[in-house]
Amino acid sequence: MKKILLSITISLLVIHTKADDGHKLWLRDKKALPVNITCSINSPTINIAINELKQAWLGKANASISLRIVKNPALKNDGFIINSSGVEALTEAGILYGVYELLRRQQTGQITTGIIISNPSYNYRILNHWDNPDGSIERGYAGQSIFWRKENAFTVTDNDKKLWQEYARANASVGINGAVLNNVNASPLILNEDYLNRTKAIAAILRPYGVKVYLSAKFSSPMQSGGLKSNDPLDPEVIKWWNNKIKEIYSVIPDFGGFLIKANSEGQPGPQDYNRTHADGANMLADALQPYGGIVMWRAFVYSPNDKDRAKQAYNEFMPLDGKFRDNVIIQVKNGPVDFQPREPFSPLFGSMKKTPVMPEFQITQEYLGHSIHLVFLSTMWEECLQSDTYEYGKGSTVAKCTDGSLRPQKNTAIAGVANIGLDTNWCGHDFAQANWYAFGRLAWNNKLKSEQIADEWIKLTFYETQSITSSNNKLAWEQNFLNPVKQMMLESREAAVNYMTPLGLHHIMSANEHYGPGPWWAPARMRADWTPPYYHKADSTGLGFNRTKSGSDAVSQYNEPLASQLNNPNTCPDNVLLWFHHLPWNFKMKSGKTLWDELCIHYDKGIQQVRAFQKIWDKAEAYVDKERFEKVQRKLRSQMNNAVLWKDGCLLYFQQFSKMPIPAYLERPVNNLDDIIKNDTPQRRRPA
Amino acid sequence: MKKILLSITISLLVIHTKADDGHKLWLRDKKALPVNITCSINSPTINIAINELKQAWLGKANASISLRIVKNPALKNDGFIINSSGVEALTEAGILYGVYELLRRQQTGQITTGIIISNPSYNYRILNHWDNPDGSIERGYAGQSIFWRKENAFTVTDNDKKLWQEYARANASVGINGAVLNNVNASPLILNEDYLNRTKAIAAILRPYGVKVYLSAKFSSPMQSGGLKSNDPLDPEVIKWWNNKIKEIYSVIPDFGGFLIKANSEGQPGPQDYNRTHADGANMLADALQPYGGIVMWRAFVYSPNDKDRAKQAYNEFMPLDGKFRDNVIIQVKNGPVDFQPREPFSPLFGSMKKTPVMPEFQITQEYLGHSIHLVFLSTMWEECLQSDTYEYGKGSTVAKCTDGSLRPQKNTAIAGVANIGLDTNWCGHDFAQANWYAFGRLAWNNKLKSEQIADEWIKLTFYETQSITSSNNKLAWEQNFLNPVKQMMLESREAAVNYMTPLGLHHIMSANEHYGPGPWWAPARMRADWTPPYYHKADSTGLGFNRTKSGSDAVSQYNEPLASQLNNPNTCPDNVLLWFHHLPWNFKMKSGKTLWDELCIHYDKGIQQVRAFQKIWDKAEAYVDKERFEKVQRKLRSQMNNAVLWKDGCLLYFQQFSKMPIPAYLERPVNNLDDIIKNDTPQRRRPA
Repeated sequence: MKKILLSITISLLVIHTKADDGHKLWLRDKKALPVNITCSINSPTINIAINELKQAWLGKANASISLRIVKNPALKNDGFIINSSGVEALTEAGILYGVYELLRRQQTGQITTGIIISNPSYNYRILNHWDNPDGSIERGYAGQSIFWRKENAFTVTDNDKKLWQEYARANASVGINGAVLNNVNASPLILNEDYLNRTKAIAAILRPYGVKVYLSAKFSSPMQSGGLKSNDPLDPEVIKWWNNKIKEIYSVIPDFGGFLIKANSEGQPGPQDYNRTHADGANMLADALQPYGGIVMWRAFVYSPNDKDRAKQAYNEFMPLDGKFRDNVIIQVKNGPVDFQPREPFSPLFGSMKKTPVMPEFQITQEYLGHSIHLVFLSTMWEECLQSDTYEYGKGSTVAKCTDGSLRPQKNTAIAGVANIGLDTNWCGHDFAQANWYAFGRLAWNNKLKSEQIADEWIKLTFYETQSITSSNNKLAWEQNFLNPVKQMMLESREAAVNYMTPLGLHHIMSANEHYGPGPWWAPARMRADWTPPYYHKADSTGLGFNRTKSGSDAVSQYNEPLASQLNNPNTCPDNVLLWFHHLPWNFKMKSGKTLWDELCIHYDKGIQQVRAFQKIWDKAEAYVDKERFEKVQRKLRSQMNNAVLWKDGCLLYFQQFSKMPIPAYLERPVNNLDDIIKNDTPQRRRPA
Repeated sequence: MKKILLSITISLLVIHTKADDGHKLWLRDKKALPVNITCSINSPTINIAINELKQAWLGKANASISLRIVKNPALKNDGFIINSSGVEALTEAGILYGVYELLRRQQTGQITTGIIISNPSYNYRILNHWDNPDGSIERGYAGQSIFWRKENAFTVTDNDKKLWQEYARANASVGINGAVLNNVNASPLILNEDYLNRTKAIAAILRPYGVKVYLSAKFSSPMQSGGLKSNDPLDPEVIKWWNNKIKEIYSVIPDFGGFLIKANSEGQPGPQDYNRTHADGANMLADALQPYGGIVMWRAFVYSPNDKDRAKQAYNEFMPLDGKFRDNVIIQVKNGPVDFQPREPFSPLFGSMKKTPVMPEFQITQEYLGHSIHLVFLSTMWEECLQSDTYEYGKGSTVAKCTDGSLRPQKNTAIAGVANIGLDTNWCGHDFAQANWYAFGRLAWNNKLKSEQIADEWIKLTFYETQSITSSNNKLAWEQNFLNPVKQMMLESREAAVNYMTPLGLHHIMSANEHYGPGPWWAPARMRADWTPPYYHKADSTGLGFNRTKSGSDAVSQYNEPLASQLNNPNTCPDNVLLWFHHLPWNFKMKSGKTLWDELCIHYDKGIQQVRAFQKIWDKAEAYVDKERFEKVQRKLRSQMNNAVLWKDGCLLYFQQFSKMPIPAYLERPVNNLDDIIKNDTPQRRRPA
């Protein structure tokens, strides 16, 4: 009898659900039930909506559903209403979004009855692709570009079209309605005829899904592509060149969305090269785009090598320009004041600009968060930013409300995410990185969503397969053994990464070698200081952290009261950004009663214990995942664990040189030696984006 | 008040004892008390004994000590008596050993009163140096040879003499009385005049310390050095050549010890090349050495590529020759039947040869046990071998008794250890590897010693410094916080290595790349099978392990009853050699009730948990060790931990391909992927020794 039981136990473990390469994302094939759909419109977008319903209907069999364009004051923009009769919206895109919402609710077990009204938080919900014309992707960890390639660069194949359609569908299913197709470190090539024609082909595929195309334009295009003698935005020749170029673009792509501009940032050309302001530059382009309905997304990611505090620069450059931008300009601001770190306080620009639309820029690709190797669910990071209180209009002035038009009238509201998409079969390299694409779309649509719900939805859509659930392996078991632990892992994963990389407000201490491993020591001679970690952590014998208080760089004063005062005082400043704002003695007494050094050690150690626990969670879930994705994620978790330990060891052993204090005896000891870690790290020239 | 307490805690941690480079080994400088020594003899050896007493006397101040050569039937060989009047012995060397014993007892707090009689377990207590004439050392991990070098190869410097003297003193202090100065894979060069003259210079330094020199001779020397047409041991020309060569050697070094021979083993030439037996070869040399009192140590480490079970070969080749060797031949047998693995059963030759002296060969250098990186105290391994019961003459016929003359009269008894000594300042690379040199000497002198006592002595001699012990940091604290935990670590360390490398009787599954990391997969095409791990572990879908039972290779029958039957049955075979003797199903039920696979996982996991605990033990001991040695050992423990995890991950993931069973959910998960481990291992051609 025992032998029989044993063989059952074992065989259970090899009953995997069928292999899955992850290519279908959260839109996996369903065994749909029949449904009757009525709609008076015949259009590409409506036909997509109808097909989606037919392919995936899990509601009452033979139910009758109508899709209707209506006028309803409860609806805004591409919002929709789901009620017992079907989906209503102001626009065809709204109908499509409503259909995806209805199907998602059916698939995830959310209520579908009653009246569901949903309006998007932002008008513009945009992916930024840092894709280069040669097909490479800056900070891309999932293969080459799906849009551009080096060989046969301008041939549009059926495979291209199929992939672009799948891409558009995935975006539409979560409400993303725009895509900047090329890198913010833009090549002037992108505005040439060949690239515009390829952009046209892409736009044609994306259009029925409600996804507009945008391009990053290089500010020096007039000289580099047009042969002009200047790029001065007030130069009539320059203005004329841009007007003609934009006219050309719209002749090719009539619904072109507009430009994303990185100017006077990290060596990129810009209006300051001609003593003009960001506003001068942005407005010139905005004026040229305005007749066509195009917009300018102008990045505020600026800093110069001689700043005493890089974190202050964007605010300092842009606040004086508040109100000076055309109304089709939106200032695109990274979530934090430095650069997509595992944790930053929110950028003070969110709580400060009152007359200019500001849009958050999140980074979906995990430049600083373990590339496509670490499992890090970024939704909690974005939620944290969106829910941060800026106090701009008093308590409750969250970043979300300061950017979505809740607190002041804005013609345009927008949000951007730097995409993590490439030619990898599963799009994102890491199967769980798909969740970040998903989460960005969901939060762009509804910036009040909780990460817990997003994770719950995504896991159900991505992993649950009714056809594989047997009686002994039923839904309840799936929820207990897979959904709940995996969800917990996802929700904890970003804090784990912060713990093992940059706890307590540390930031920008990564290896110069592609920003993957630890590198707090990296500071070659003649390297500009603000590209080296010691500029940020300021470790010395007296302590650790960047003094941004009133006695330091005074970056705290860029925040509104009472937040500024709270941050200014180390006893009220939250632990999780403490070293962002303070340089504190190694034996500073933390809120826990422990020293700063001990807390630092404890946080790093906790990070690796968390990843170790993630490994156990995933391995225990083996019976509930297809073998292909199970093993891929398992492999990556192993590498993540290894890298997490490297982070812990590298940072603690480096900082210990200054603290001269022992790692608390109850914590795991380092397993790497500092000089080995440094030796094995081969820094390349940083290419910030 | 709290602040004051804190600073005290910290300052305690930085009060290190003074830096120590480890060069003085267990013979550190003492603050000696005055002592009056009387001795009627004036000789180099006695003068050394007197100096040692004067430099290190920690007994009663101004005590009177006499050193006397006596005839006492209680004494054998170089044994000694310590009593209230001093030290008595048959020989000057015996006096010296007695002095070292007396001083050691004073330094380690052992009793020095009453009458202490001590005779050596073996007449010949020999280090084998695998040093090549060019100064390299096969399986050496502590720098180049202290005897030979490439540049200025035949110049004897004062530094050479000083180092050789320190070496001789260290050997004498633990009773080692012989040194084979060159590699068993011998170069014929070593018997040339230049090398013999250098050997003479070494012998001159070693002689007063009672250490004789030996050489490894290449069996093909007659042809390679003498220009003869044969090496046939029965060829009169060959016999003549060896007679002349040996005559030459003794003319240079009158007390030359003899030869160590590796013949017909791993490509080395030997008598079998001429259809002669090992006995023919050994006896020819023995006859030539006999007039001078020299001996032949003839290695039984033989196996051929077409053996079905390499483990049986030595027994099969040598047992038929039992009784056919001259009485100045000793058969040198590695502790286990294969090759210095982390754990092997004892070689059955120890319990079988009745008419031929057999000497154990232990490997002090850690070829298969982590080189000079892993902290592995080998004393427990050797103790385990020495105390293994062969049942040769009934119960209690331990390997120790079968080799030391206890059970049958033997003219010569001997033991050899392959040295771990090189030009590194601390001699052995790892500070704790010194303990293995020490332990070999102590066990060679007294094969009944317990490893616990050896470790206790060594730690006290090596780390305790009266001058550094303050009132708040006293001897009791030192014992509680340093001696006891460090001793525990040492005593557990070999089992830890077995756990994370080769638990449950696994063996020879190391990387071909210098035998450091794991390599159970390594099996290139056309490589002789018995040099590849799969030959030894035989993992397949049906199970794991080498079937050496009666139904397999029947190696069990080389052991005496009742041991043979005990080993033959998987239910009575000890777990720690189970897979040595059995190929068992992955779900075989172990004595614990768990499956073989689970026990395998548990053992590998335990190994890494043990090393992790060692790291904590060592770090907690920081205040009690000089900074230099503390940090060196700390660094090595980190690397050991890393390598232990690599072993665990590599082996479990490799074997899991066959077992198809999950690593138990309560164990830590792998953090390395199998293909990465294999890729990063760059196998070189194995050069076995």
